[in-house]
Amino acid sequence: MKKTATLLINCPDRKGLVAAIADFLYRHNANILHADQHQDAAENLFLMRVEWDLEGFGLQPEEFEREFTPIAQQFQMQWQLKLSGQKPRLAIFVSKYDHCLVDLLYRHQSGELACDIPLIISNHPDTQRIADFYGIPFEVVEVTKENKAEAESRQFALLDEHKIDLIVLARYMQVLSPEFVKRYPQRVINIHHSFLPAFVGARPYHRAFERGVKLIGATSHYVTEVLDEGPIIEQDIVRVSHRDQLEDLIQKGRDLEKVVLSRAVRWHVENRILLYSNKTVIFD
Amino acid sequence: MKKTATLLINCPDRKGLVAAIADFLYRHNANILHADQHQDAAENLFLMRVEWDLEGFGLQPEEFEREFTPIAQQFQMQWQLKLSGQKPRLAIFVSKYDHCLVDLLYRHQSGELACDIPLIISNHPDTQRIADFYGIPFEVVEVTKENKAEAESRQFALLDEHKIDLIVLARYMQVLSPEFVKRYPQRVINIHHSFLPAFVGARPYHRAFERGVKLIGATSHYVTEVLDEGPIIEQDIVRVSHRDQLEDLIQKGRDLEKVVLSRAVRWHVENRILLYSNKTVIFD
Amino acid sequence: MKKTATLLINCPDRKGLVAAIADFLYRHNANILHADQHQDAAENLFLMRVEWDLEGFGLQPEEFEREFTPIAQQFQMQWQLKLSGQKPRLAIFVSKYDHCLVDLLYRHQSGELACDIPLIISNHPDTQRIADFYGIPFEVVEVTKENKAEAESRQFALLDEHKIDLIVLARYMQVLSPEFVKRYPQRVINIHHSFLPAFVGARPYHRAFERGVKLIGATSHYVTEVLDEGPIIEQDIVRVSHRDQLEDLIQKGRDLEKVVLSRAVRWHVENRILLYSNKTVIFD
Amino acid sequence: MKKTATLLINCPDRKGLVAAIADFLYRHNANILHADQHQDAAENLFLMRVEWDLEGFGLQPEEFEREFTPIAQQFQMQWQLKLSGQKPRLAIFVSKYDHCLVDLLYRHQSGELACDIPLIISNHPDTQRIADFYGIPFEVVEVTKENKAEAESRQFALLDEHKIDLIVLARYMQVLSPEFVKRYPQRVINIHHSFLPAFVGARPYHRAFERGVKLIGATSHYVTEVLDEGPIIEQDIVRVSHRDQLEDLIQKGRDLEKVVLSRAVRWHVENRILLYSNKTVIFD
Repeated sequence: MKKTATLLINCPDRKGLVAAIADFLYRHNANILHADQHQDAAENLFLMRVEWDLEGFGLQPEEFEREFTPIAQQFQMQWQLKLSGQKPRLAIFVSKYDHCLVDLLYRHQSGELACDIPLIISNHPDTQRIADFYGIPFEVVEVTKENKAEAESRQFALLDEHKIDLIVLARYMQVLSPEFVKRYPQRVINIHHSFLPAFVGARPYHRAFERGVKLIGATSHYVTEVLDEGPIIEQDIVRVSHRDQLEDLIQKGRDLEKVVLSRAVRWHVENRILLYSNKTVIFD
Repeated sequence: MKKTATLLINCPDRKGLVAAIADFLYRHNANILHADQHQDAAENLFLMRVEWDLEGFGLQPEEFEREFTPIAQQFQMQWQLKLSGQKPRLAIFVSKYDHCLVDLLYRHQSGELACDIPLIISNHPDTQRIADFYGIPFEVVEVTKENKAEAESRQFALLDEHKIDLIVLARYMQVLSPEFVKRYPQRVINIHHSFLPAFVGARPYHRAFERGVKLIGATSHYVTEVLDEGPIIEQDIVRVSHRDQLEDLIQKGRDLEKVVLSRAVRWHVENRILLYSNKTVIFD
Repeated sequence: MKKTATLLINCPDRKGLVAAIADFLYRHNANILHADQHQDAAENLFLMRVEWDLEGFGLQPEEFEREFTPIAQQFQMQWQLKLSGQKPRLAIFVSKYDHCLVDLLYRHQSGELACDIPLIISNHPDTQRIADFYGIPFEVVEVTKENKAEAESRQFALLDEHKIDLIVLARYMQVLSPEFVKRYPQRVINIHHSFLPAFVGARPYHRAFERGVKLIGATSHYVTEVLDEGPIIEQDIVRVSHRDQLEDLIQKGRDLEKVVLSRAVRWHVENRILLYSNKTVIFD
Repeated sequence: MKKTATLLINCPDRKGLVAAIADFLYRHNANILHADQHQDAAENLFLMRVEWDLEGFGLQPEEFEREFTPIAQQFQMQWQLKLSGQKPRLAIFVSKYDHCLVDLLYRHQSGELACDIPLIISNHPDTQRIADFYGIPFEVVEVTKENKAEAESRQFALLDEHKIDLIVLARYMQVLSPEFVKRYPQRVINIHHSFLPAFVGARPYHRAFERGVKLIGATSHYVTEVLDEGPIIEQDIVRVSHRDQLEDLIQKGRDLEKVVLSRAVRWHVENRILLYSNKTVIFD
């Protein structure tokens, strides 16, 4: 595996922007592996992801900021530099439904997800055994109406202790408080079991069944303060018919949820997602 | 082409039902070509579609009712008999967007739709030329806020004159009055340019674009009194990305709308749709 | 869970067939839960699946054959009766790629597959740990060019010992001998990692990548004597682009393989598959 | 509509490449609208598409070559410059099946295809009327086994006379000679009615039906000397079941063919397709 650096840029669109970035990388001898950009004319916005080989690159990571800052300031860039050696640290939140958890753990073990998973938090003890199988610390934090603030404090402590970068709600059946969401902006990914914005809220399969839809879906999105309204990362659907009962929808939906959530997690940990105006750009 | 009869049945589920129907058809020497049934345990409902060759069948169509009524009464059936020789008569309503109209007319001419199309009604003269090309009477009925009731009266007169069985709203940009809907129960098919129930109402592509969805859809449904709430006949979706601008959504959506509407029309004219609890059963 | 019986019928299409079956079931007081039939006019073939509640049914399972045989003979039926209480016994064959195995075991444990899995056979010891996690006997039978006949003898002994009804090749990287295939007609399901008949044989992802296809697929099928030519049970595809490297195809393909294989296994164990002319009818 | 220029580049991947191109465009005051690039590490290849507004651009189109040549030579580029004002001229070849023709003509008229269509060539007179409706010259060139060379000479004359840039085979039922193909390298697009490489050659729907596939597909590709082996531009599929007879496959397939061919034509005329190693890169 090559050691690489990935630069993510978000700024107003202006002439000379690409020339400035390309010239900077060339001067420091970067061997570019992938580059993607997106322009939004309506918003006058420029978004870029560029990944290069660190071998032969003329700057040490710690020198990068100093050297790049003049360009960043000139073009009013928001930017981040990610190094492939620094794997993001991910916590999975889960309740009783374990299919997304099992799926993520298997993908992680088989090398599909370039992250560390040092923590699983659940409000039920049911998934302890699978966490043990994969050797991942498993913490039960019970949540009730009464103890919600306390429970979240306990969760914050665990997240801090394990230096968590990204929280994945793998069918976690609790709504996070506004404080929680504010503490982890664009760092909480949820899977909702409908093609949003259809069936926002509870029991989407039940409502899809009652409405008689011919497709069911799943949506992964970043969690924001308004329920199920955060930026959509990925969606997919599967066809259903009158032959499908509610249980069939739920069963077919599980396969969707696993795939849609795992794509979102993978893109996030590979730094492929940029955000603007409540939308995502996926550089895949 | 064989001459066939199609029997559609909707009744409470009871033992002996299939035996009674099968025995009736056998006694009258029916050569069954297709049979489909659906049971809904929760609603205790039985739905059936059976199609047979009229050649050799022992009853004249006009005798069927008399002979079948005892069985129908015994099992409390709602039933309809459709003869392949009696093609349904279809009116297409259209405004300025002509892609669904053009698509339906081409499919009709190429033999894909087993119906007659004796009438096109539009609130704009724009599509006259394509109607002429296919030799179909084209009537302009202008609709304004002020003249809506009058305009619908004129439409009713045209529909009556042409003995219309089914109305297809092919991107017709007017909302029908409750009176209109009541006059044609389960006989008006609309195409809505979203995967309902997402983006009910106006400008669904604009709202899909703003929401940043990763899929756009189209839905064909029967029109009922509540806007976009009627029984869904068919839905389909296509994938979009951040590279797609609003115009791209609209363009990709056109291909969906055409296919989704034409499937609904075909299934209706082939008597493949049964309705219950605001849902459709499609015997395809 | 209700105790049910499922009758599968395959015979020449003749008038009176449905009446005879329906009447038989009615006379014995069967409460029909699901019935599906398919007619192939070109082949003059009639296929049926009917499932009924055993509660209140007037025949004991052991009486069924005697009572049904006259009808079966009259219409030259091939038929099978399956009881929900008699779960099929399934053996999984696997090599080193474990994603399909892990997926099947999880689905089995979560109640999605109505079968027993008393045996896993592998030519490598790698997947022992996951077999142990789910508590399923795991047998290593090494296969080389030289010992193939011997190895299959050992496999036959294990399959006999565990009374196996169905063998699932979950990315098992060995070709079965003609003797093996003959011993288990329509009882071996394989997953092939392409949309057959494209890319029959070895290394389909490599060849798909070289060919520059825009879709990759997976196919589950019954194993017959000609490689990858058996009746197709299920297929699905996923879109790829020039941005996908070979490893991306392999990774995306894994998700397809799991879903496509698991659907085939489920339909088989639920007695939803009928076969004719090297094709499958899926009563789903 | 903005007047734009699109530059397509294909060259060995080298450091400094993007910097050189971006600097060149910046120095000449280009307002970049879209830029996409693709690197193939295995082939050490760099492909780029960049489109900019001609308003304010510092070079006249006729000066571009002179100014850009030094950079092009330094990096061994193959390159093309396309101006939005110079619409490609397209000829459609058709036989009796008219669905793709009708679809392309409608899309062209509704502004979806940025090209001129000055010529339709058919070996049958059947589609004359639709050509007339859209006001497009229609030439019948009969093709038999005996007159093939002559017929192609007549076609060449027509193609020359109408200064044709791109030939679209819209279900044209004749195989082009190697001379024809050689005369229009990467300038003939065909639609094949299967998901290639499955069912290369004649009667793919018949063979798909016999094989019992669960998906049917369509593939648009550039025509090369080996039948159905040219670079794939686009593919799509639709699900079929045992309920679908051969005619259903053909009918469902028509909808695929139209969409898959029209996407390929649109991408070609918008200069979104780059070719290497018998593969396409689609900058969509």
